[in-house]
Amino acid sequence: MSLRTLQQLADQFALEIDGDPDYEIGSLSTLASAGPGALSFLANPHYLDHLNSTQAGAVLLSANHADRFSGNKLISPDPYLSWAKIANDLHPVIQAAPGIHPTASVAANCKIHPTASIAAQVSIGADCTIGERVSIGPGCVLEHGVTLADDARLVARVFIGHGCNIDKRVLIHPGVVIGADGFGLAFEHDHWIKVPQIGRVVIGPDCEIGANTTIDRGAIDDTVLEQDVRLDNQVQIAHNVHIGAHTAIAGCCGVAGSTRIGRYCMIAGASGIGGHLEITDKVVITAMSTVLESIHEPGHYGSGIPARPQRQWQRLLVRLGQLEQWSARLRKVEKKPS
Amino acid sequence: MSLRTLQQLADQFALEIDGDPDYEIGSLSTLASAGPGALSFLANPHYLDHLNSTQAGAVLLSANHADRFSGNKLISPDPYLSWAKIANDLHPVIQAAPGIHPTASVAANCKIHPTASIAAQVSIGADCTIGERVSIGPGCVLEHGVTLADDARLVARVFIGHGCNIDKRVLIHPGVVIGADGFGLAFEHDHWIKVPQIGRVVIGPDCEIGANTTIDRGAIDDTVLEQDVRLDNQVQIAHNVHIGAHTAIAGCCGVAGSTRIGRYCMIAGASGIGGHLEITDKVVITAMSTVLESIHEPGHYGSGIPARPQRQWQRLLVRLGQLEQWSARLRKVEKKPS
Amino acid sequence: MSLRTLQQLADQFALEIDGDPDYEIGSLSTLASAGPGALSFLANPHYLDHLNSTQAGAVLLSANHADRFSGNKLISPDPYLSWAKIANDLHPVIQAAPGIHPTASVAANCKIHPTASIAAQVSIGADCTIGERVSIGPGCVLEHGVTLADDARLVARVFIGHGCNIDKRVLIHPGVVIGADGFGLAFEHDHWIKVPQIGRVVIGPDCEIGANTTIDRGAIDDTVLEQDVRLDNQVQIAHNVHIGAHTAIAGCCGVAGSTRIGRYCMIAGASGIGGHLEITDKVVITAMSTVLESIHEPGHYGSGIPARPQRQWQRLLVRLGQLEQWSARLRKVEKKPS
Repeated sequence: MSLRTLQQLADQFALEIDGDPDYEIGSLSTLASAGPGALSFLANPHYLDHLNSTQAGAVLLSANHADRFSGNKLISPDPYLSWAKIANDLHPVIQAAPGIHPTASVAANCKIHPTASIAAQVSIGADCTIGERVSIGPGCVLEHGVTLADDARLVARVFIGHGCNIDKRVLIHPGVVIGADGFGLAFEHDHWIKVPQIGRVVIGPDCEIGANTTIDRGAIDDTVLEQDVRLDNQVQIAHNVHIGAHTAIAGCCGVAGSTRIGRYCMIAGASGIGGHLEITDKVVITAMSTVLESIHEPGHYGSGIPARPQRQWQRLLVRLGQLEQWSARLRKVEKKPS
Repeated sequence: MSLRTLQQLADQFALEIDGDPDYEIGSLSTLASAGPGALSFLANPHYLDHLNSTQAGAVLLSANHADRFSGNKLISPDPYLSWAKIANDLHPVIQAAPGIHPTASVAANCKIHPTASIAAQVSIGADCTIGERVSIGPGCVLEHGVTLADDARLVARVFIGHGCNIDKRVLIHPGVVIGADGFGLAFEHDHWIKVPQIGRVVIGPDCEIGANTTIDRGAIDDTVLEQDVRLDNQVQIAHNVHIGAHTAIAGCCGVAGSTRIGRYCMIAGASGIGGHLEITDKVVITAMSTVLESIHEPGHYGSGIPARPQRQWQRLLVRLGQLEQWSARLRKVEKKPS
Repeated sequence: MSLRTLQQLADQFALEIDGDPDYEIGSLSTLASAGPGALSFLANPHYLDHLNSTQAGAVLLSANHADRFSGNKLISPDPYLSWAKIANDLHPVIQAAPGIHPTASVAANCKIHPTASIAAQVSIGADCTIGERVSIGPGCVLEHGVTLADDARLVARVFIGHGCNIDKRVLIHPGVVIGADGFGLAFEHDHWIKVPQIGRVVIGPDCEIGANTTIDRGAIDDTVLEQDVRLDNQVQIAHNVHIGAHTAIAGCCGVAGSTRIGRYCMIAGASGIGGHLEITDKVVITAMSTVLESIHEPGHYGSGIPARPQRQWQRLLVRLGQLEQWSARLRKVEKKPS
């Protein structure tokens, strides 16, 4: 990381300075672990107390927290956003060296841009198209007919099934499986018959897909992620799901088949969304919730139950089991003459 | 896809025609996206309205929906099953070319049938037996002593641990891990000691295993899937689980150690099943349920709570916390003299 | 497995013999499947009945169950712990042959101990340090600057991101992804901006990481597992989580970002733990629970709801929806004059 003065950062990212404009930043750090020369930030008020003890050389924070810190400050209306921009600038993505590693296996008829990078142990099937500056990390597997648009990045050990289409600047983390068969089964008398999954997966520009996430190919039509969809790790997207632009889904969520999720939704961790539903735009699902009906109004929804001490929880489960009987008892006391 | 007339499909799959028997089908499509020349189908009444607007050249549906569509029809007592058969016929699995890719690493003493296909970047340990027409896709790893019976297919990046046994026509999707160690720990004073996992995984014929699913090897005896078990993506099967024939488990479910699940069970997405339980045949578990006791009667079981608007849900959580107190209050009003 | 007499086992593992000290053990087995010559054990009283029917040549069990079995016995104060030690002795880990497989791709400047084993199809980036007797199984990917200390074992298809640090004797199962980017996003006007994840993952000695588990790199500081942490399969550990020594987390759990979990905790399967929480030492979380607040007292906590017959469960959901109204009705009957 090259050194920057607070003045340079303030100019580049439209921040206000409170302190020494010539102070030089040599690293980025948290409030808790920062030392001199480090820039830190405060976005989550949960960590407000850390301002008292931090050794940070400068802190990026909002105007309403500025009086809580006496050292050098960069003031932003949205410190987390400003932090993201500074960190991207100081820690840019390092472009992989162009070319095809000698251990990679690439089908002869693929169209691979000379600026693309194909790492060791990669396997690419026939008829693939690889755009400019695409990076395919070690151990990735592309079946035939895959398209990766410019600046797509597959970190390592990613699988992309035949015919799938990955748009520009999509970032895919290790262990992701895109375009495996959806779970389609028909029952005949006494056994299952597999239903061929003949759709594709189509992923829009600027999406990010977390480690070991799975996105199944469509049964007939495609499974679709619009632009700027952000999936965390171990998310499961079933066949023919359609996710609107700018929606973010946290770790361990599952979305069942043919459900449409709107734009700008946020789905917290480990939630499950049933099949064949419509979730409108700007819906927020809280953690570990179960969505079994369509949601037509923006807003927050949930069904996660916070853990309690186990004895308390066991008693509560007993009470739940008594509710049916309570209903009758309540009716009975209501009928008593007063 | 080769063209077929409605007459040919009707003859081959025992369907009734209502419309032009010489109409030629050139593709398969959903009602929503079909154009002329496409065959579509209606199985889920959820999509009944699509019959009004579809451009499909022909629709496969049941007799009781036939009057809802005026175009060419194929009529079946089970449209989804008929669809599965037609789709399998028109989109057959393409057999991989026999032989061992030059980048694959295969131990010298393996028995590999000449019709088997071993793709790029594969690693196969000693003493493996690979049957007729087996397909091992790119990046798969087999430890020593693995058996893959005829027509087994490992799509890509599948791991099979030492000594595991995969029967005929088993289909395994990318990222699957079969035969990793089960989670066996013994506690000594102040630290854990690993319990060696010396059993295997044995998978019966016609099973299908979804992407990134994990099936642990047995602690002592084997972990077993009987024939025609169907697991979706990101399912976790712990050591010594035994799953009966024809049981289907949807995405993100987990089954804890030593539990026996019967035949013809269906377990919906993201459900968890505790350890050391017995689940009898023909049990249906609904989505996001927690099974903590054995189930001895066939039927439907569940504990998933549908999400509500968050404010409503928060109030409900408050009420849950009051149930203990309500119990006393209810007793008190019951005792009041009338 | 070499033969051992009961006397040899008793001497080596400080057990008491009840029966023939010269009886030879040729295999390890469960009570249910054991035959003559096999040693079995009883730890879980759930299987007490199996003592009546077992064909085991000898059984390892505790003194208080000894009179339930009439054959040869080894008596231990902790049969499961003794079993673990015997099994480790009789089924030792087989050291992989030292050396680098010709299909592996290893950056020139790595420091690799000559006793280390690097298998087929491995890819290792620049500046990695690989200790004594380290085993890197087939298809593993190490980015640049990774350190694997002595006796670390990566079974197969493991990904370790740049700069991550894996301590001695850590065992990592197939499909694990360590050091992928955490889920860090800042929102700007109408789209997401990625927040660079510049921390590492640091894993202490004697940890074990289950198949397809993911551990994200820290956003700024590191994500940390202290010594002897045990993670089962498909666990998701978000950025900047800190897990105390000797904590065990069962399959399918997720821990959200920046949460600190204490030492000697046990978290049962499919539980979710929210972000920015503090969980103290010796906390036990029961299966499928949702932890949304910090826990400051050791003990058991939970919120998992056991499944019931679906009709019963549906009625209970209706009653839950009525609680708000019941609250008013209860107040009303309380106010009735008696």
